[in-house]
Formats: sequence, C-alpha cells, structure tokens
Amino acid sequence: MIKIGIVGGTGYTGVELLRILAVHPDAEVKCITSRSEAGMPVADMYPNLRGHFDLAFSEPDSAVLAQCDLVFFATPHGVAMRMVPELMAAGVRVVDLSADFRLKDLDVWAKWYGMPHETPEWAQKAVYGLPEVARDAIRQAQLVANPGCYPTAVQLGFLPLLEQGLVDPTRLIADAKSGASGAGRQGNIGMLHGEIGESFKAYGASGHRHLPEIRQGLSLAATGPVGVTFVPHLVPMIRGIEATLYAELSEPADFDRLQALYEERYRAEPFVDVMPFGSHPETRSVRGGNQCRMALHRQEQSNVVIVSSVIDNLVKGAAGQAVQNMNIMFGLDETQGLKAPALLP
Amino acid sequence: MIKIGIVGGTGYTGVELLRILAVHPDAEVKCITSRSEAGMPVADMYPNLRGHFDLAFSEPDSAVLAQCDLVFFATPHGVAMRMVPELMAAGVRVVDLSADFRLKDLDVWAKWYGMPHETPEWAQKAVYGLPEVARDAIRQAQLVANPGCYPTAVQLGFLPLLEQGLVDPTRLIADAKSGASGAGRQGNIGMLHGEIGESFKAYGASGHRHLPEIRQGLSLAATGPVGVTFVPHLVPMIRGIEATLYAELSEPADFDRLQALYEERYRAEPFVDVMPFGSHPETRSVRGGNQCRMALHRQEQSNVVIVSSVIDNLVKGAAGQAVQNMNIMFGLDETQGLKAPALLP
Amino acid sequence: MIKIGIVGGTGYTGVELLRILAVHPDAEVKCITSRSEAGMPVADMYPNLRGHFDLAFSEPDSAVLAQCDLVFFATPHGVAMRMVPELMAAGVRVVDLSADFRLKDLDVWAKWYGMPHETPEWAQKAVYGLPEVARDAIRQAQLVANPGCYPTAVQLGFLPLLEQGLVDPTRLIADAKSGASGAGRQGNIGMLHGEIGESFKAYGASGHRHLPEIRQGLSLAATGPVGVTFVPHLVPMIRGIEATLYAELSEPADFDRLQALYEERYRAEPFVDVMPFGSHPETRSVRGGNQCRMALHRQEQSNVVIVSSVIDNLVKGAAGQAVQNMNIMFGLDETQGLKAPALLP
Amino acid sequence: MIKIGIVGGTGYTGVELLRILAVHPDAEVKCITSRSEAGMPVADMYPNLRGHFDLAFSEPDSAVLAQCDLVFFATPHGVAMRMVPELMAAGVRVVDLSADFRLKDLDVWAKWYGMPHETPEWAQKAVYGLPEVARDAIRQAQLVANPGCYPTAVQLGFLPLLEQGLVDPTRLIADAKSGASGAGRQGNIGMLHGEIGESFKAYGASGHRHLPEIRQGLSLAATGPVGVTFVPHLVPMIRGIEATLYAELSEPADFDRLQALYEERYRAEPFVDVMPFGSHPETRSVRGGNQCRMALHRQEQSNVVIVSSVIDNLVKGAAGQAVQNMNIMFGLDETQGLKAPALLP
Repeated sequence: MIKIGIVGGTGYTGVELLRILAVHPDAEVKCITSRSEAGMPVADMYPNLRGHFDLAFSEPDSAVLAQCDLVFFATPHGVAMRMVPELMAAGVRVVDLSADFRLKDLDVWAKWYGMPHETPEWAQKAVYGLPEVARDAIRQAQLVANPGCYPTAVQLGFLPLLEQGLVDPTRLIADAKSGASGAGRQGNIGMLHGEIGESFKAYGASGHRHLPEIRQGLSLAATGPVGVTFVPHLVPMIRGIEATLYAELSEPADFDRLQALYEERYRAEPFVDVMPFGSHPETRSVRGGNQCRMALHRQEQSNVVIVSSVIDNLVKGAAGQAVQNMNIMFGLDETQGLKAPALLP
Repeated sequence: MIKIGIVGGTGYTGVELLRILAVHPDAEVKCITSRSEAGMPVADMYPNLRGHFDLAFSEPDSAVLAQCDLVFFATPHGVAMRMVPELMAAGVRVVDLSADFRLKDLDVWAKWYGMPHETPEWAQKAVYGLPEVARDAIRQAQLVANPGCYPTAVQLGFLPLLEQGLVDPTRLIADAKSGASGAGRQGNIGMLHGEIGESFKAYGASGHRHLPEIRQGLSLAATGPVGVTFVPHLVPMIRGIEATLYAELSEPADFDRLQALYEERYRAEPFVDVMPFGSHPETRSVRGGNQCRMALHRQEQSNVVIVSSVIDNLVKGAAGQAVQNMNIMFGLDETQGLKAPALLP
Repeated sequence: MIKIGIVGGTGYTGVELLRILAVHPDAEVKCITSRSEAGMPVADMYPNLRGHFDLAFSEPDSAVLAQCDLVFFATPHGVAMRMVPELMAAGVRVVDLSADFRLKDLDVWAKWYGMPHETPEWAQKAVYGLPEVARDAIRQAQLVANPGCYPTAVQLGFLPLLEQGLVDPTRLIADAKSGASGAGRQGNIGMLHGEIGESFKAYGASGHRHLPEIRQGLSLAATGPVGVTFVPHLVPMIRGIEATLYAELSEPADFDRLQALYEERYRAEPFVDVMPFGSHPETRSVRGGNQCRMALHRQEQSNVVIVSSVIDNLVKGAAGQAVQNMNIMFGLDETQGLKAPALLP
Repeated sequence: MIKIGIVGGTGYTGVELLRILAVHPDAEVKCITSRSEAGMPVADMYPNLRGHFDLAFSEPDSAVLAQCDLVFFATPHGVAMRMVPELMAAGVRVVDLSADFRLKDLDVWAKWYGMPHETPEWAQKAVYGLPEVARDAIRQAQLVANPGCYPTAVQLGFLPLLEQGLVDPTRLIADAKSGASGAGRQGNIGMLHGEIGESFKAYGASGHRHLPEIRQGLSLAATGPVGVTFVPHLVPMIRGIEATLYAELSEPADFDRLQALYEERYRAEPFVDVMPFGSHPETRSVRGGNQCRMALHRQEQSNVVIVSSVIDNLVKGAAGQAVQNMNIMFGLDETQGLKAPALLP
C-alpha cells in the first residue's frame, strides 16, 4: 500500500484525487491538508465522498507528510516550491499538480507567476510528467511536475507532427476551450453560474500562463524554437478541454500518412486514443476518464493539418495524470485505478 | 463469470449498463442487441466505451440469449413482456429495466401503457426489485422488475414514515425533478437542447406512468391505500432526480425521533445515505453513483415532514440498481462494480 | 420624462432595471449609485449596455437622489430602510426592490432579517406592490415595496383559490424552483458554475425569508391565517422561477369551475396569462418578459388542485414588476417599456 | 405599415422573426406559412408569443404572399429558390434567410447543397445582405440573400484587415463556436440535451457549408483569392457564436494602428461594436440583440493578429440582420425594432 499525502485538498483537483484514490487498490490516503478547513471531514465538503473517507482536513505538518511514500501537491503556485526541499530530504516522492516545477527557464517562470523561483535546483531536477514523452524519467523521478491541463491536450495533439518535422514549427495555432472547473473553486464573481452560464468567450487571449509551458514542450519535440499562438476559451460546462490545433504541412503529400503516423505514435499508449480520420472527439467521451482522444482533419484546397484533441481537465489534465505518474513511479500497472470508462451521457 | 446479455442496448440505460459492467469483476457481456443498429460496434455509438468493448450490436436471437446467465432488458415497454417466457423456460434469469413487470394490477398496467399485458403469470411471479424492501425475494427470483427512476427516489424517501404509520397516508405529495436523460435517446423535438436548455417546467402533472407504481409501493409499505400526488419536472441537466416529499405527521411530537428512525431504517443499506437533519442533498453528489441520499426538514409552525431524496436516474434509478439486483441474485457482494464515488464536480 | 435614480445598481436587479429602462419611452435614468464601483461606467461592468448608457456608477448622494422623481432601491436589506425617510421628506417616490418594506409584522421582519427595523412608520405606510392585488393603492403610493420573486409566483398562483375560499387554507404547499440569478452577483463559492451546473437541490427547506412574505400575502387573500409549506430549489439555469402549488379543494365538484375562475380573475391583467387546463408553462416562455404564466392540473382520484406558475425572477419577480409599479404610480400605460415578447429559445 | 409574409415559420429563425416583428412599429405580419403545422396558432407552438399574435400557420399560397410588401424565407435550402421567381414577378421584395442565394458560383453551390440551382438568374441578381458591406445595394434590392450566421461573425471580424491588405490572405484561420440553436429545430438525436449538454466538440472540421460563403466574402474584401481554414464547434448553450480569427500581419509595425483602423471602419455602423484592445467579448453581451461585438489581441513574440467576434446567431446571424435589411430596403431607421439591449445575465 502506497501511503499518500495530499497538500491543499479543498479544490477541485483535491477532490478529484480523492475520488480516484478512493478505489485505487494500491494506495491509501493518510493525510490531506488545508489550513483554512482544518478539522472539517472531507466528506462534509464533498458529499460524494461520504462513506469513502473518514479523513478530515488537517494543518500541513512536515513530520506527518514525511511519513508518506508520495505527496501530491494540489496547491496554488508558490506553495510546493517552498515545501518540496524538506520532503525531498526526507526521501518522500512528490507529484506537484501546481505550476511550480513545470518550466525550466526560471526567468520565464518568474515573469508569468509574478515571483522569483525559490528552489531552482529542484526546478532543474524535476521531471515534466507527461508519460507519453518521459515515461522512463518519471519512473526514476523523486519529483514530478504534473503538466497543466491545456498543455496536456495541446502537446499530445501536436507531438507526432513536430517529432517528425512535418509542419512549419513557426506557425502553430492552438485554439483551446475549457469547462469552468479549470478555474478552481474560489469565490470569483466571474465564475458564477450567472456569469458564465449560457455564454462563451475567449480569455487570456493576449497571453496565458500555459503558453510558455506549451512552447517549452513543443520546442523539445521539434528540437528547436517554435512559434505558437494559444487562445483559451471558457465553455459553459464543468469538465472538459477541447483543443483545435492548426499547423501547415510542409509537404502536402504527407497528408496520406498522417493518420498512420498518429496511430503508430500512440499505439502503446494506454491513455491516448486516435480516432478514425475525420472524427470529432467530444469532451463528454472522456468525462471522468484519463483519456486523451484525438482526430485529424483536412479541408479542401488546404495544406493545414487540423487536430482536435480532448481531455477531462481534472483527470488527464490534472488528478488522473498525477495518479498515472504515481503508478509509473511505483512500478504499478500504469492504468491501475484509472480503468473505468468515462461517464456518458 | 456471469454471462450477460443485454436486449435493447442503444439507449442511455444500455450504455450505462455497459459502463458499469465494463469494470465489474464478475460479469462479462456476451451480447447486446439492437434491431436498428445491428452490426454497429457499441464503441462507435458510445465513444466512452472505445477500448472497453469489442462487441457490436446484434439482432436479438433467443438461442444466443438462452446461453446467458442473466439478461437485462433495456427496452421500451411491451418488449420484455413478449420475450421473457422463452428465456424463463430456458432457465435464464432476467432483470427487466422496462415497466413491463412492475405493476401487479394488470388493468392499471394496461390503462397506463396502452396495451393489454400478454404474460400475466410472469407479472405475478416477478419480484419488484427494490433491494431495500425485497432483498430476500430478489435473491431467489428468476425475474426481477427493476423499479422506475422516480419510484425509487420517492419510495425510499417515504418508506420509514409509512412503515411506522407516522403520517397521514392519504395526503402524500411528491414533487420530483429529473434531468433530461430520463426521457431516453430518441429524436424528440421536445428534448432538444434548444428546447430544454435554460428552462424548467412541470410535465405529466395531470398523470404520469410512474404514479401507479409509486402508489403500489407506498400502499405496500403503509399496508393500506394511500393518496399520493406526484408531479414530475424537467431540469436542464442530464442526470439526476431530486424528489421533495411532503407528509403530515399525525403526532407532532414524533418529529424528535424521525432522524433516528431514518438512520436506523437504512443503517445496513449500502446504497442509502441519510444525511444530518436539515441537510440539502445535491444530485451531483450521486452522479454516476448508485446512492440514494436523503435528508429531513421541518418548518416552523408546521407538522409537515419534508424529505429531500436524490438519485442518479440512470444508476440507482436504472442500470446501477439493475446491477445491484444482479449482485444479489448471484450471491455476490452487493456493492460489486458499484463502489466508485460519484463524479463531483 | 420621469427622472430616475437607482441605488445599488451593480447587481443583477440593477442591470435588469437598466436594460428595461434603456428603451422605456417615458423614463430617463439620471443616476445610479454604487459605493464599491463609483466611477466605473455601467457599460464597462455590463457590456450589453454599451451604446445605451453613458452613465457611470456614483457614490450615493441624497441631494442628487432628491432631484429624481422616482428612486429604485436594488440594495441588500437594511439600506433602503435607512435612506427612505430623507427621500420621502423630499417628496421623491420610491420603489424598493429589497425586502425592507414588504412585511407589516416587524417582529417577524426582525427575526428573519437579523436586525431591528429602523423606520416602522414607513413600513406601515408602504404599499406592497403586487399590482394584481393593490393597483389602486400603488397608484397613490409614495413608497412601494416591490414583492420578492418567489412570493410573486406563489401568490399569483394561489390567489383565486384563496379569495374564493375554495381550498383548505391550512394545507398549502409551494414547491418552488429558481435559476441562479436569484442569489445575486456576489463572490459566493456555492454559486459557482462548478458548484451548481449539472446539479439540482433544495435549499432553505427548513425556512426561507420568503416564507413570511408568502404567508402574509396569502393570509390577506384568505382573510385569515394560512398554513403554508414553502421549499425553494436551485435550478442549473440563470433566469426563471417555477412554483408548483398544491391545495386541497373543499368541494371536489368545484374542479369544474376552476379554469373559468382563474381566467376570469386574471382577464384584465396585462401580465398574467392563464393557459388552457392541463398545460405546462415553461420558464423560457417568460424569459426577459414581465409575464406570470400559469396552468391548472388535476390527478385522478384526487381533490388536490395543482397550479404551475412561472415568472422570470429578474423581471416579474423584480425589475419588471418595479417598472410596472412605476408605470402605475405615474399614470402611464401599465405595459409601457414591458411589451416585448420573452426570448425563446 | 409594411405587410410581411414569412415562409417556413416553425423553426427558431421563424419564431425569432416573430419576436422581433411583434414590437416593430412599421411592420405587420400578415401570414406565416408551414405545410406541416397549417392551422396551428403560432402562440400554441411558441408560448412566448401568447398575446402578441393571433395568427395561425397556413399553407403557403402564392396569391396571399403576393399581397405582401416583403416576404422572409426561413426555410431549408431549395425552397426559396423555387418560389422566388413568382414573387419577384409580382413585385414583392424578398429577404431569404436560407442559403439559396448567397453564393455566386453556382457550381460551388450545387456541390455543397447537393442539388443544381434552379434559378441562376436570381442568384446573380440577389444582393448579399451584409449591410456593413453592401448597404447601398441592399437599399435598391428586390432580393436579398441574408448571410449565414458563421459568415457574419467571421467576415465582420476579418474585413478591416483584408480591405486594407494588412495580412497574408492565404493564411486565415477562423475557429468558430456556436450554440445549439444554429442547428435548427428538428428531431435530431445528435442535438438532444442529453447528447450535447456538458460537452464540447468540433464538427464539420473537414468542410462545412459556410466555408465557401466565407471564402467568397473574404475574397471580395481582399480583392483576390484567400486561403481560409474554418472549423465550427458546438457549445452547450442555446444562442451565440464566437469566432476567434487568426491572421498574420505582413508588417509587424502595423499592430499599432489596428485598433484605430477597426474603430474607424465601424464607427458609423449601428450594429458593430469594437471593444477596447485586449477585451474579451462574451456571447451573452449580444444575446437577443443585433450587435456584432469584437476585440483585438496580440501575443508576445508574434505577428499574428487575433480577433474575437461575437454575435447572437439567431439575431445578427439571422432574423435580426434580416430585419435590419428590411429597414434598409424600406427606407426606415436602420435600427427600428432592434434597439433593445441584449439580455444579460
């Protein structure tokens, strides 16, 4: 049994970790912390967990966390950065669901997150936890930076094109759409049902924190600089991200082998599903599941490759991918605890 | 491994059975029938099942079904009634999710369902599959009539009051609300997103097919005739039923022991959760789960008991309860395949 | 041109007043106040008003308000109570959309609103502004207490029955459902889209502030005490209230004349629409409009009258009814500015 | 009073025309046809129109339509094409909301709409009714082809860039999202609430009928061929389109004058609103209104211009624009009947 600690468990990522771990056969949640809600049973905040956990939120306590095998951070940025060194020293392994260890260029990190990075050595040592790219490194890692939700959907969709050098890497466009749970669970007027129900809009169109993370990942795949435009949008639903990706094929003739290329690239991946050419993945087809589902499109008179890629932002985009990383780190079946089909309808 | 057949699997109840059975350790779906979609892989219709089932819909074939241990009917009314006798003769056990075997008074059945009942002997033998009332009979049954969605939420909410004779049985009111999946998956203009999104209404307020089923169940609990008014409403969401129940307490003093009574009545029930007095159960707290969650309320200057009861109409109100019945019938742990927490948010 | 002031204009009721008044031919908004947003153009907060208003929110200023012909209060309770006397003294007329002047029994008011009433004399003088009951008094009133949203839907639905003494007044049940805009526009976690989307629940089931207001109105209609149980629910939509009302008919024979009674009662009312017997009013049929639409139902073997009554909580339940009251107070056509059909779909 | 006929009034475009015309001071609907619903009062199908229209749907009758001043076609493609010549001969003016007269290249039309065009001479004479481009021609036109919903949002967003030749016309991308009402009101399983609620997906990504219409309009603005990729998506809401447009600026220095250029281009347009640079238009800000609202964005290290453009697909994208065209054709104030602010929240 892997002994699990969760730091910062009151948000949607926290409850999603609990939901998944509640039926994971090899993991047991030993503590879940929240300064603001210390003492409250988790099932009082999240009634879907009634009968599944007796646990209450507790004040974060290094000594307690140090007795865990694995600690998940589901905190705002800036928290894991400060707590990680002590846990590392204690030999605890960490999967950080926040943004603290995702970027290697800490000047870029500081600019987008509005504070200097305090543990640059761990930022360099951290493994960016996209299993489809870094499975072997994850297996060995003590510290895994769990990818952001948008970056997961966008990178998985673009990877085969960039790895094979088939498209112009300076002209990538990622038009992404997310349900409201991506904004977390805070008393933000802009996220009221009355504000976002029955409406659709872009946000962060002049620049969003996930842009440098996307750029970093795509540059690695392309082995060189990329030019990517990323515009997120808010969808009046709770869960789900769809990213529609546009790239210019250098050789139009290559269209014929794209489908095979994608299928081949992801054949062995348990959580990436390439649908038939011309399909339209729906976010509901991954609701509650750890899949990334994608399909390719081409329009007449055009050499633009179109990829539509969907995930559940709280699962493959956060808690599910974190558990997938845990499974890899601890040598378990990678799909353990993540086998149930998505909830449709 | 229990060999499972599903008749009429293209609707929401069918896909929900598949979703649950996909990870049930003791059951294996051997065939799923649909006349209209014969030949189509189930994963083509329901992409959440990609990777979970290789099965395609097939024409219903008695010989194939006869080799199953258990057949679920997820068909419109009138179908199971005709196919059941042959399966019974073959020794197959059946859980019918349609309305064919729910009512004992076949004149009432004929009136509400617009056709004479063709297998009255089986209508009498069928066990009404509400485990909280009839667990022992279900265990022995060859034919189980799986309760309707509204009747499940309403009966479980009223049962303790009626069994103990604490309220006026002639003045029961059940104001119930359901998400849109309850209407099934047919090309019905009235169920378009454009018609029911951002709107709320009553329907069937002058009489709904679940009224006689509710009346039958409540009469059994009250051991006498009951007067019940039942008004269903359509909520602009997909899953979930909430029933707000009103009854007049005969002795106001009894208010003090109601909470204890409910907790006692359902203490051993794995799928009924009585929340603290004055709580407000949310349908999302049971989304995708097999729970019925309920709470009691009292208003000042009043002897009206208020019960709010929620279920997922596709799970405890249909497919989940059917699998619960299967577990009971085959001597399995009653919660097998039904242990995952609900999907919240 | 009626010169209008609005106190507390940043909430949903405020923007709704502006939306309606933007095209009202006889009224001109001279000032709109908000302490927290003073200086911000209203069109910056509410982009639907771009091009309609040059106005900015301003600090409340008695001198400015005193120059208006009519001041609307769209404030939390406790504000109008304190500001009204000065405006009354200045001869300004007021429509208060808050709860400050709705109840005549100020002990009850103090209990439900958690503070003593500070201007009891004006609480007595205020006219409860339900035009279908008090049109003549409204015409003369200097101070109108605009009814609450639930009380509007519930009272209009019950009135004909109580005025005619046809039902048992001690056994009234009002099961009401509202969209999320009824909770206003505050940073309340419980009203996030992530919390209430795709979910349904009761709230305030043990007692809600609109209960004494409903009781007061129904008692006046019944000319005697009434017993009413009122349970509100939250619907995952933005606008709309549906109330399903239950009452026991004293004489079952009276069913035959109920429809005619309702039609007669509301024949001359421009904003009450009695649909044919057995209809199901939808909230979308009144979205953005000032109508209350209702229909009657009866179930077999029952002497319970069922009334389903719908309004837009922000229009007939708040800003629209306030403008209707203004029209009456100033001798205008009662439908002025309120003629557009509801927005469907 | 302009005498109005509507052919094919049972869909969402039909009811929207009626909603707008109900309070238009200069127009009177004389007949509205529907073969399938002939005899049914329009208010029975659309209860928001109760009290506004006594009209019933009628069989289409050329003699009756010939007595109208203006006939709107709100029909599937192929219908207006056949009926228009007779109305033209009778001197009636027509605004066709279907696709029959939008394309000038009838081979392209035939390919996308699956039938040969039967009245090519009228296809050539028809004026494409985008007032911001063709106001003078519309004024004189006997036959106006009302633009499609996506093409309206996309063209208005791209026009200033193309007219000024500031961007590479071969690399235009339009990622567009629409509410469900765009699919009309038919018994289509794919448009059930249970299918599209709480989900998001692309559709028509390999080619959509609005692509050639967009290409035609943008080519005219660019005075030369354009390369445009257009991907529509389905949003779980009823009304609204948002289009996020991407184009490469030829001279990065031109960014500084883009905002002024857009403001200048649309300064005199009553229904186009250019928001401040970096704003995020919401579809709800135009719900029920005839506006197109847009804003510009730029990301660091990029010469991609991003435009976010929103409309209500049923208003500026259909019925509202049709009434705007009517106003122009008949010399009325162009905003007549279209002045009310959008419904927010």
